[in-house]
Amino acid sequence: MSSIGPPTGMRDWLPQDALLRQRLMETISSVYRLYGYLPIDTPAMEDLAVLLGKGGGENEKLLFKILKRGEKLAQAKDELADYGLRYDLTVPLARFVATHQGKIPKVFRRYHIGPVWRADRPQKGRFREFYQCDIDVVGGASSAYEVEIITATERVLNELGFRKYWFRISDRRLLPLLLTGYGVPQNKISSIAVLLDKLDKISSMELHAELNEILQKDSSPWRKLRLLIDRASTNVDHTVLLATVLEHYEKHFSEIDPVVKVEIDQIVSGLGRIIKSVRAINSNSRLIFHPILVRGMDYYTGPIYEAVVEGCSSAVLGGGRYDDLIGQLAGRKIPAVGCSIGFERILSLLQEREAGHAVGSVPRALLICDEQDAALLQQQAERLRNEGLCIETYLDHDDVGKQFKYAETAGITWAIKHFDAASSSLTVRYLPDRSDHLWYILQCESYRIILLYSA
Amino acid sequence: MSSIGPPTGMRDWLPQDALLRQRLMETISSVYRLYGYLPIDTPAMEDLAVLLGKGGGENEKLLFKILKRGEKLAQAKDELADYGLRYDLTVPLARFVATHQGKIPKVFRRYHIGPVWRADRPQKGRFREFYQCDIDVVGGASSAYEVEIITATERVLNELGFRKYWFRISDRRLLPLLLTGYGVPQNKISSIAVLLDKLDKISSMELHAELNEILQKDSSPWRKLRLLIDRASTNVDHTVLLATVLEHYEKHFSEIDPVVKVEIDQIVSGLGRIIKSVRAINSNSRLIFHPILVRGMDYYTGPIYEAVVEGCSSAVLGGGRYDDLIGQLAGRKIPAVGCSIGFERILSLLQEREAGHAVGSVPRALLICDEQDAALLQQQAERLRNEGLCIETYLDHDDVGKQFKYAETAGITWAIKHFDAASSSLTVRYLPDRSDHLWYILQCESYRIILLYSA
Repeated sequence: MSSIGPPTGMRDWLPQDALLRQRLMETISSVYRLYGYLPIDTPAMEDLAVLLGKGGGENEKLLFKILKRGEKLAQAKDELADYGLRYDLTVPLARFVATHQGKIPKVFRRYHIGPVWRADRPQKGRFREFYQCDIDVVGGASSAYEVEIITATERVLNELGFRKYWFRISDRRLLPLLLTGYGVPQNKISSIAVLLDKLDKISSMELHAELNEILQKDSSPWRKLRLLIDRASTNVDHTVLLATVLEHYEKHFSEIDPVVKVEIDQIVSGLGRIIKSVRAINSNSRLIFHPILVRGMDYYTGPIYEAVVEGCSSAVLGGGRYDDLIGQLAGRKIPAVGCSIGFERILSLLQEREAGHAVGSVPRALLICDEQDAALLQQQAERLRNEGLCIETYLDHDDVGKQFKYAETAGITWAIKHFDAASSSLTVRYLPDRSDHLWYILQCESYRIILLYSA
Repeated sequence: MSSIGPPTGMRDWLPQDALLRQRLMETISSVYRLYGYLPIDTPAMEDLAVLLGKGGGENEKLLFKILKRGEKLAQAKDELADYGLRYDLTVPLARFVATHQGKIPKVFRRYHIGPVWRADRPQKGRFREFYQCDIDVVGGASSAYEVEIITATERVLNELGFRKYWFRISDRRLLPLLLTGYGVPQNKISSIAVLLDKLDKISSMELHAELNEILQKDSSPWRKLRLLIDRASTNVDHTVLLATVLEHYEKHFSEIDPVVKVEIDQIVSGLGRIIKSVRAINSNSRLIFHPILVRGMDYYTGPIYEAVVEGCSSAVLGGGRYDDLIGQLAGRKIPAVGCSIGFERILSLLQEREAGHAVGSVPRALLICDEQDAALLQQQAERLRNEGLCIETYLDHDDVGKQFKYAETAGITWAIKHFDAASSSLTVRYLPDRSDHLWYILQCESYRIILLYSA
């Protein structure tokens, strides 16, 4: 039984990781709260009917279903399950909104961080139980909500210490219109969109080969598109780029339907207004227009966006407006706009960044059991805790070397070798290899500290 | 579809409750961290074999099982499920310890707060998805760990503002020994234990009736027990009570086996030492010896304890030493002592206490949309957020009365009617019925505040 572990594709969280996860949740929460967003939660399970919706289809395969129980199982014919574990936080949100109509405000700003389950084939970085983090405004039709969500989300990235990122924006409707204008046949548009979605991950040779195959060597749309892709490289000023796109399609769209042209014009100016507003609020914004942006989900109805962090080939977060989805269960149209933060991806970036540091752990000290008995040691520890110090006590009578060893393996930075209540002095041994030197010095203001550096 | 809701016996968490839950988790976590305890987490599911252990039995009925998928379901004969949802946090802890042997320190202090699932019949206050909160020391054999757990847990109760509580302690082995000494036949002991476990919930008439039935009107053991029960009333000094019990059994145990007597003596002195140590650490401790204490779980092997809060008929938390359970999956004996905080019960006590107050909600202000356009409003809001204020903006052009109304229904305390960046002044309307007056005044130090009290 010694190789016993968690279920396939699922993870235990040891303290270091559990703490880091908690810190990430707290950072995200505190930023969105600043914007008036509040947390909600829903059960891990939902009725199968809610989860499968009308179609079922793709999602059904991903579902962990809950076996019926007792009588109901005995009588069950085809369907052996009654509930399923949620596979995202969007379906539960739609159900939540339908359930609590009247109790939630007209414009409902909420965030939801929690685990979801998918019976996917586990792969590196892909789990069967993982955290999602969704922020949405339900009931807000104005594009001012996009501005708010983007501003708040950029603040999250900054709080997390990401400086080298780009926040790309486009509109779900734009790329198909542009491709049409370039002369791409309607039946090729979705293949090209899929290809462009992979742009960050494939080489330019692969891109060419695939484009050639899709467009059957008709290079004219490709040349026009090429200009757009080149301009959409991440370090171009957004105003230049916007102007380029406008100018670009002025030049190339002479033959297309004026109605389509008006539509493109409206979409591009709408995006321009969002970018301008965001930059007026936050002059450090790294929001850029990215006309070839494709977000996988087909439920988006308007602006879409994503953030890419330097050194990471896929987006760390993404979102957009989806006005047709949330109201489906409530039976009326409810506009909505949101953002899904790639919680697990960001967590693994933080883990890499902090590898070797004890940053994720709570700074704490070990009170060494020297000659005192346990009862006295515990009284001393409590006095230090009353000062706000996290103090662990070593309660067995092992020799001091063994106790230091324990502190090191348990990730404890400071070992208190002697506590003199009369003179308020602590004789402290600092265990190297840890980087949170300063914490205890700062926290121990009420004590005179005698430092013993270990060899 | 408008009556759609969460699955039977499960709950949605609206913001107010989600925030309160989060606050409770944070309070509990911060106290245990002070004592060197760290968080862990485990998946919602475990292998069925892990959950059912050797016996299965009672637990099997409570289990939500996960239906096998694809091929495996098609080929399944008897057992249609492979995983189950965890029904407590103790079995996952045992599995966690078996999985991560060598990675966790010899003395492993951990806390774990998370949902568990039980396919119970839902009742008032009993849910099919609910939170548990467990604190345990794995690998600590000394009774100094009981002292630590009790001290830390009393600190939690204090932090939560519970002043009128009793923390009762006994030893799992004591009551059967005492009952034997009083002459209760061996086959009646467990019935009497079950009865004593209900003592807080039944009337003294019911108690008498049931005792009479069990003891078949042999009133001699009952009279002796009576004295113990009377003395075990909650407001007796523990030293008096300890002495009474010692004296009491000296008097009544003349006929019993001297070995048993030594055993009782050791147990009672052990408890005496724990109580003395706890009181030496914390002079406000409300730990009392409660010789008739019975905790349901039969896996306890030594000291057991629980806390009862005035006005609440069942214990709000309980725990004890259980040296035989954790090592079962690891294949070796591992001593363990812990405490399970009745998370949901405490949450509902906090909800009652705070009903009508907006304490659970995040203090935030609504920036009213007056004449400015949304873009300007959002710039102003961001300046206030940069000062650490939680600011929600009203982004539709509704009339001001409607905006105040929204603030009230959304639980927002302050409405900012006018923000003058030049003079750093805020004209603020206070929405009554809320009790967190001071927050904004304190937070807004950098602004001159002009208060408009609403009619």
